[in-house]
Amino acid sequence: MPKGMDKIGCYEFWAEPFHCDFNKRLMMGHLGNHLLNAADFHSRDRGFGMAFLNSIKKTWVLSRLAIEMEELPPMYARFQVETWVETAMRFFTNRNFKVQDIDSGKVYGYGRSVWAMIDTETRQPANLLDICEGAISQYVLKEKECPIAKSSRVNVGEDAALAATIVTQYNDIDVNGHFNSVKYIEHILNLFSLDWYASHQLHRLEIAYVAEAHYGDSVKLYRHDTDDGLTTSVRMVKDDHDGQEVEICRALVKFK
Amino acid sequence: MPKGMDKIGCYEFWAEPFHCDFNKRLMMGHLGNHLLNAADFHSRDRGFGMAFLNSIKKTWVLSRLAIEMEELPPMYARFQVETWVETAMRFFTNRNFKVQDIDSGKVYGYGRSVWAMIDTETRQPANLLDICEGAISQYVLKEKECPIAKSSRVNVGEDAALAATIVTQYNDIDVNGHFNSVKYIEHILNLFSLDWYASHQLHRLEIAYVAEAHYGDSVKLYRHDTDDGLTTSVRMVKDDHDGQEVEICRALVKFK
Repeated sequence: MPKGMDKIGCYEFWAEPFHCDFNKRLMMGHLGNHLLNAADFHSRDRGFGMAFLNSIKKTWVLSRLAIEMEELPPMYARFQVETWVETAMRFFTNRNFKVQDIDSGKVYGYGRSVWAMIDTETRQPANLLDICEGAISQYVLKEKECPIAKSSRVNVGEDAALAATIVTQYNDIDVNGHFNSVKYIEHILNLFSLDWYASHQLHRLEIAYVAEAHYGDSVKLYRHDTDDGLTTSVRMVKDDHDGQEVEICRALVKFK
Repeated sequence: MPKGMDKIGCYEFWAEPFHCDFNKRLMMGHLGNHLLNAADFHSRDRGFGMAFLNSIKKTWVLSRLAIEMEELPPMYARFQVETWVETAMRFFTNRNFKVQDIDSGKVYGYGRSVWAMIDTETRQPANLLDICEGAISQYVLKEKECPIAKSSRVNVGEDAALAATIVTQYNDIDVNGHFNSVKYIEHILNLFSLDWYASHQLHRLEIAYVAEAHYGDSVKLYRHDTDDGLTTSVRMVKDDHDGQEVEICRALVKFK
């Protein structure tokens, strides 16, 4: 273990004005971006970051992300994101997050994520325990509490209604030429109206990334609102070249 | 002048992976956000920031923004934004920006902006020289070089073609309930294809914010490509409630 490297990484962020919504709270997409940055910092500092992996033709692939917030940080709040590896198996690692106000100590919420590693040439799964002689294993921390549920298997019934159709554009595409993981979140949260956000607080977002989408893909979002009126499941599909729908992600959005 | 306060503010940022495009360069919308943050820090530290102004029922309104880049910072680059007030008149102030790599010293580019101050209750212009007994005047710095052209009067001919229609959504709306200044940039840059960005480098963006738009507005983007093939002028309009088009912004985008 590199000298001075704790199992937990702690990184500072703040709620930038243009990243806040009309409630003057950080938008969940931008929070998701901060969590992904924290994951990148933590893994980089410990020898298995994205930049290093790319140099050996491997990369991290985000498989699932769950964020559950008591509240979202208000505009200008300085907050820290703690992140640590809960488990590391051959083909998946679980990484958790805790989001806390720096000045007041208030805990805003938690996150959970699941990552795979792939070979960037073959696109096949890679054994993440092989990297740097199993470096990641030294940092596994099972004991730290992450008091939110793991991602569920999101079921989106066949009766889900078509809620939006988008065509992916320049700003949707990430450095790898794929639909940007953060932009998925934005498009999902755009399914709800400003009136809805005025009277309901976003509590939990789960997203399972199933397949990649690319520039110019026509993407459909289907939504199913559950009986309690506060939970919506979402299925995103793209049209493949034979006119078939290919699922690219499933998500669950809970309000309170 | 508060002790130790230079006329120039200097703030550090970095090119976050999920803020970069497929060329692995920071997207201009996110750079615009950093410039606006730098402006907010600089004015806050000198007594005329947004948070203070809101407490006395005033606010800054961004009127024009021009950004001209030799190149955009590559992924993970640490860069600084210097910002200073070039002029301050009763109803407008000119604020400039210099964007420079922290490690190499390379100058990436410059920005120019024009701001007005308004009363948040009457929505009428306010005299910005009245704030804190003319505090802003102490910081005017005419001498520092900003070697890019001022914003031009963008002319978008009547023959401009309808290029996109969007309906503003949750993520487009800022803390004041208006169309987010940064999102204008994203929507304008989405007018160009990934193929175009693969073979052309974004060089300059000028945007004049003319009128506010709100949630649910139907916004049309008209574009006119000039003869050299590298310059596009854009007019954004919203439909008012009588079916008339109201101009909300004009922009000029130059590639090289």
